[in-house]
Amino acid sequence: MIDFDFRNPTRIIFGRGVIERLGPTVVEYGGAKVLLHYGGGSIKSNGVYDAVKRSLEGAGLEVIELGGVRPNPRLSLIQEGIKICRDNGIDFIVAAGGGSVIDSAKAIGVGVPYSGNVWDFYMDREIPVETLPVATVLTMPAAGSEASFSSVVTNDDGALKRPLDIELIYPAFSILDPETTYSLPPYNTACGISDMLVHVIERYFTRVPDVDLTDRLCEATMRTIISNAPIVLAEPKNYAARSEIMWAGCVAHNNLLNTGRIGDWGSHMIEHELSAINDVAHGAGLAVIVPAWMKYVCKHDPERFLQFAVRVFGVEQSFHDPERTIMRGIDALGGFFRSIGMPSTLAEIGIGEESFQAIADKVKKIDPEKRIVGNLVPLTNADIVEILKIAK
Amino acid sequence: MIDFDFRNPTRIIFGRGVIERLGPTVVEYGGAKVLLHYGGGSIKSNGVYDAVKRSLEGAGLEVIELGGVRPNPRLSLIQEGIKICRDNGIDFIVAAGGGSVIDSAKAIGVGVPYSGNVWDFYMDREIPVETLPVATVLTMPAAGSEASFSSVVTNDDGALKRPLDIELIYPAFSILDPETTYSLPPYNTACGISDMLVHVIERYFTRVPDVDLTDRLCEATMRTIISNAPIVLAEPKNYAARSEIMWAGCVAHNNLLNTGRIGDWGSHMIEHELSAINDVAHGAGLAVIVPAWMKYVCKHDPERFLQFAVRVFGVEQSFHDPERTIMRGIDALGGFFRSIGMPSTLAEIGIGEESFQAIADKVKKIDPEKRIVGNLVPLTNADIVEILKIAK
Repeated sequence: MIDFDFRNPTRIIFGRGVIERLGPTVVEYGGAKVLLHYGGGSIKSNGVYDAVKRSLEGAGLEVIELGGVRPNPRLSLIQEGIKICRDNGIDFIVAAGGGSVIDSAKAIGVGVPYSGNVWDFYMDREIPVETLPVATVLTMPAAGSEASFSSVVTNDDGALKRPLDIELIYPAFSILDPETTYSLPPYNTACGISDMLVHVIERYFTRVPDVDLTDRLCEATMRTIISNAPIVLAEPKNYAARSEIMWAGCVAHNNLLNTGRIGDWGSHMIEHELSAINDVAHGAGLAVIVPAWMKYVCKHDPERFLQFAVRVFGVEQSFHDPERTIMRGIDALGGFFRSIGMPSTLAEIGIGEESFQAIADKVKKIDPEKRIVGNLVPLTNADIVEILKIAK
Repeated sequence: MIDFDFRNPTRIIFGRGVIERLGPTVVEYGGAKVLLHYGGGSIKSNGVYDAVKRSLEGAGLEVIELGGVRPNPRLSLIQEGIKICRDNGIDFIVAAGGGSVIDSAKAIGVGVPYSGNVWDFYMDREIPVETLPVATVLTMPAAGSEASFSSVVTNDDGALKRPLDIELIYPAFSILDPETTYSLPPYNTACGISDMLVHVIERYFTRVPDVDLTDRLCEATMRTIISNAPIVLAEPKNYAARSEIMWAGCVAHNNLLNTGRIGDWGSHMIEHELSAINDVAHGAGLAVIVPAWMKYVCKHDPERFLQFAVRVFGVEQSFHDPERTIMRGIDALGGFFRSIGMPSTLAEIGIGEESFQAIADKVKKIDPEKRIVGNLVPLTNADIVEILKIAK
C-alpha cells in the first residue's frame, strides 16, 4: 500500500422520488440563481426535467437553462455556459443527465471565475482555484462523475479529449433516483455498465503490492455489477437491480477503491482517442479495448490476473496451468461484455487497421512531457498498435 | 435497499511518517491555538507525542495539553477540557490516541460553544449545532472514530454509557500512520480487531432486502480483517498487515458500508453495559456477546447467516443441511476470536449469572421512549438474558 491523502465530500441523496429534495438542498447550500444544464431530449420525455424544474422553482430559485450537451462534451457549449452564468449572475449549477452533462457543468463551474480560456485547465496550463458549486441529478449510471473529482472535455477544433482531475470539482451533492434509469435504452444501460466496470478494472490492475482491502472492495464492486447487469437488461424496471447498478457506478469512481494504489488507465487513454475519432460510446470502446489489453499485458503480472479470474469470475483454478486460468478469466470478461450487447472488435465500431498507427501516435503524443500510457505496464506506440491488432 | 443520505467529509492522510503533516494541515484548516488531547503514557513512550508536538509547534501553533483520557471516556475530563478551551481561546482540537481519546475530543468540541451541560447532547435533550474542529492522530485501529460521526461517553455518576451520532462531529481530518501501531500490545491489537470486525457485523445483519453491493463490501472488509489479524499478531512490525488493519478499521465505521441498510447494533447495546460495569475492553466484550447473539437470533434470518458462513468464512455449504452450515459459520467466528486471544465467555471477563437480569434491565431502560434493542430481531429483556446465558 502506498501513502495516500483521500477525501470525498460529495453528499449522495439516494432513493425513490428524491428529486423533490433538489431545490431545498440547493437553497441549503446557498444557491439563489441556478443554471440548469442538460443534454438532449431524454430528460424531457422521462419526466426528470419536469421534476427538476418543479423542485427548483418550488424552492424559490431562479432558473436559466442550457441544454444540448452531446456525448464527449464540447468546449464551445461550455464557453456558452460560462458566458450565460456571467451575464446572469448565476451562483449555482445543476447538471441533470449523465457523465457528459456533469463534466460539462464542472467545466462551466471552474470557467466562470477564471479570466482566461477554461481549456487552459484541461491542457495543464493553469490550475483552477475557484468554482461555482455544482450539484447533479444523475440519470445515467456510468461515468461516476456524480461523485468524482474528474471532468473530461473534448475540444471542438482538435478532436482532443482531455481530463481535469482536482478536488475542487467534487460536486457539492448528487441526487440519485434509480427510477430515473428505468427508461434508459438497453444499449445505453450496457455502455454505462461497461464504463463503471472498467473504472474498477483500471484501479484493480496495479503493480503496488499489499493492497488487500482495496483489492477485495474492487472485487465486491465488480461482482455486484456483473451479477446485476443481466437483471436490469431483462427487467428494466427492477428497482433493486437498478439501485445496485446506480450505487455501484458511483462507488466505482469515488476514489475510495483507489486508496493506497495506482491504477493503470492505459485502456482509458487508448479509448479516449477512439471516441474522439468517431464518437463511439465510451463504454462500447472500452469493452473492445480492455480484453485485448489484458491479453497483451497479463504475462507481466500473472498472479494478479489469476486473482482476477478466480475472485471476480469464479473461474476454477488450474493450479498446474495458471495460464489457462488467466485466459479463462479474460474470456469470461469478454463474454460478459458480449452478453450485455457490447461490441468485441474494432471492426464492429468502424475502426480499421489502417488507422491503428495514427491512433497509437495520438495516444502517445497528447502530452510530450507525460507520455506514460498505462502503469501496470507502460505502453510504447508499438505496444498500442499490437493491442489494437488483438482487438481488430 | 432503502433510501439514504450519505456524506463523509473527513480527510484521511495515510502512510509512513505522515504525522509531520499534522501542524501544517491544522494551519490550512484555520487553527491557531490547539488543545492536544490524549490518554495515558503510551504516546509518550512510542514517540507519537514527540512527533505530534514537533509538528504542531513547528507550524507555529500554540499548544495546550490535556492528557488522562481513560477507556470509556468520562464526562468529568470532558468538562475540564471544555473549561480549558474557553479559558484559553482554543480554536482547534487535536486528539492523539484511540477511540476513547477521539470520542472525548468530539465531546469537548461540541461542548465549548454550548452554554448548557454537554451531557445534554448524549441524553438526547439537545442537538449540537456548532463545534470546534477536531483532527485526530490515530494510534489504535478499533473504534473507527477517526472517520465517524459518533462519540460514546460515560457519565461518572451513573455508569451510563451513551452515544452521540451527528454529522457535525465528523473529524476535519485524520492522520493514520500504521507504524504508530507497531508498539500496541497483542491484547490491545486484538481488542481493536474485534471491535472493527463487529462494526461490520452489526451493519451486515440487516433485515433490509436487496443490499447486494454493501453486502459484498462488508464481506470484503471482514475477510481483510480476518486474514490480516494473525499476521499483525505474529509480526507486530509488518507494515503491510498493519496498514490493512488500520485502513479496514476506518472503512468499517465510516458509514459507506451502511448505505441503504439498517444495521442491528443489539450486541453493541448489550456490550456497552458490560463495559460500564467493569471497564472490560469493548472489543473483548463484543467477542463474548456476538457469537451468543448469533446463535440466539439466526433462526430469524437463516439465509443471511448462511451467506455469512459461506462468503465470509468460506464454509463449504451443506445444501441439504443449512443449519449445519450456519452453525459452522458462527463457530468459525468464535474460533477466530479465540485465535486472537479474545475471551469467549462472560465468566472469563468476570461477569456472573447473578447480574444477567440487571444487565438486561439496564440495556432496555436507558431510554424508555426508544427501547428497541436490535433491528434484525428486536430483543426483549428476556431475550437479552437468554443471550447472556448462552455467553456465560
